[in-house]
Amino acid sequence: MNNKIRIGIMGYGNLGKGVETSIKNNPDMELVAIFTRRDPSTIKTITGAMVVSVDEVVNYKDKIDVMIMCGGSATDLPEQTPKYAEMFNVIDSFDTHARIWEHYQNVDCSATKGNKIALISCGWDPGTFSLNRLMAESFLPNGETYTFWGTGVSQGHSDAIRRIEGVKNAVQYTVPVEEAMDRVRRGENPVLSTRDKHIRECYVVLEEGADPVVVTEKIKSMPNYFADNDTNVHFISEEELKEKHSKMPHGGFVIRSGKTGINDENNQIVEYSLKLDSNPQFTAGVLLAYARAIYKMSLKGEVGAKTVFDIPPVLLINKTKEELLKGML
Amino acid sequence: MNNKIRIGIMGYGNLGKGVETSIKNNPDMELVAIFTRRDPSTIKTITGAMVVSVDEVVNYKDKIDVMIMCGGSATDLPEQTPKYAEMFNVIDSFDTHARIWEHYQNVDCSATKGNKIALISCGWDPGTFSLNRLMAESFLPNGETYTFWGTGVSQGHSDAIRRIEGVKNAVQYTVPVEEAMDRVRRGENPVLSTRDKHIRECYVVLEEGADPVVVTEKIKSMPNYFADNDTNVHFISEEELKEKHSKMPHGGFVIRSGKTGINDENNQIVEYSLKLDSNPQFTAGVLLAYARAIYKMSLKGEVGAKTVFDIPPVLLINKTKEELLKGML
Repeated sequence: MNNKIRIGIMGYGNLGKGVETSIKNNPDMELVAIFTRRDPSTIKTITGAMVVSVDEVVNYKDKIDVMIMCGGSATDLPEQTPKYAEMFNVIDSFDTHARIWEHYQNVDCSATKGNKIALISCGWDPGTFSLNRLMAESFLPNGETYTFWGTGVSQGHSDAIRRIEGVKNAVQYTVPVEEAMDRVRRGENPVLSTRDKHIRECYVVLEEGADPVVVTEKIKSMPNYFADNDTNVHFISEEELKEKHSKMPHGGFVIRSGKTGINDENNQIVEYSLKLDSNPQFTAGVLLAYARAIYKMSLKGEVGAKTVFDIPPVLLINKTKEELLKGML
Repeated sequence: MNNKIRIGIMGYGNLGKGVETSIKNNPDMELVAIFTRRDPSTIKTITGAMVVSVDEVVNYKDKIDVMIMCGGSATDLPEQTPKYAEMFNVIDSFDTHARIWEHYQNVDCSATKGNKIALISCGWDPGTFSLNRLMAESFLPNGETYTFWGTGVSQGHSDAIRRIEGVKNAVQYTVPVEEAMDRVRRGENPVLSTRDKHIRECYVVLEEGADPVVVTEKIKSMPNYFADNDTNVHFISEEELKEKHSKMPHGGFVIRSGKTGINDENNQIVEYSLKLDSNPQFTAGVLLAYARAIYKMSLKGEVGAKTVFDIPPVLLINKTKEELLKGML
């Protein structure tokens, strides 16, 4: 037991539960504790893992090798990741693309101060999708990269619908447009608008007496979220929503379409895709693999902020170089 | 011009021509010379690049940053890569999977001796397919990985047909079985035999007077190459072969099907695929990106043999960290 990588979870929402559930697939790791801002006695964990108040986290400074930050990107992570990177090796899934550079610099400053290593913006987008964008562009510099998301639940868009007056509950699916993907796969390198790429399917439960026509109009015209897409609104009962739309599937596609040849006469297509029954559990699997990597890097004395771009893939897996070269290369 | 990465090409077959052609897509690189065992005056290059006898290669010791080894895996690379790794930073596409470990050790020994860095077994399989096998398994440890090849021309299988008495010329396509791929994509984790995974389509030109029945039987019963697959043999004219089957398309699929959840109730599918009009030109693109990476590593004093597993992705691309974190992560 002593040689296992000791994992902590900070925050017990969907992602925290995903990490808790996925640790069993990594026999070289053990979960030490889940830290929460809530009263620990009110939380019942899936696996029986110990729950500890965040106020006591400092007592775990020498008991945790990597702390996995499972808060939200809007307000939790910008504050928590820099804070705890002074105390622990940390990894987060900060996904506000426009603020990654700022977050990186904040985290780098405190991780360096604490002699810790901190991997930010890990998961699948940002994360494995980013890696595929980078690698495919480096292999095919003359070309275009396309990212499509879905079919999957977007929490941000679902929340946006729930904030509309008259809406009791809602789930929004982002659906990639097959025809657009096929044009990309044929090497056409099309210019695609937001509308060309994704359809939005909304399943909405109305409050008693709310007007479906008004709600539909409010959804479809919402700037940033729905106005630029073809959006379909379906009204269903709370029971149907719970029964058919309570899972968290997601996925998507990164397609690089490049040209090679002396006259750019050859089409070369690289495609990476995910089809996930559970978005948080897959994200958790990626976080755990990268937790293994930064733990190994920390043993060699590396400090500061990192991203998935900085990590040699060999560090992600619990196998020897000889096993990898004989069995996987 | 002085800051460009200076590339050499060793061997001027399909891959060497691919590298020559693809350098133009990498403005941070320049091709210094192509080295050949043939008489240089007999070779006309695609781009007008300079051809030099391999006997003079020692004069280029300080004029080339990375030498790209473009010989064959059967006899050229096992001898050439260790030999030139003492003199240059080198990169090869050694693809005899069963001998990679032995090759790695030989190359490591001589690269270390020469204070050079040597990346072996780069390309797409081994190469980007290997990376995807490693990464997807690290993210989804509980699951199975499937590799399918094609649709594409297998030089080894085409050569095997050409060695049969009565065969004038031949091209063999490896075709993945869609039904098998769909079972994998549905998360069934099937056990698949060689026959289940690939069909072999052979286009054969007969010598005058050869018996098609005898040739067909010889192809279909050939051990290791065709006996374990469903194989279709088509007899065509030399003209049709030249016209319709002289390109070198290839591609394939790496699919990881994993289970997550407390009761392994969720299917998680990661798929990576290539659809290439030109196999050698894509391989060349991968080699050039990794040449950039090992050049950067050599500037930091790293030496010895490496594989794609060892390379931080950030080194593959000609962009700054700030550009990557703002625009690609």
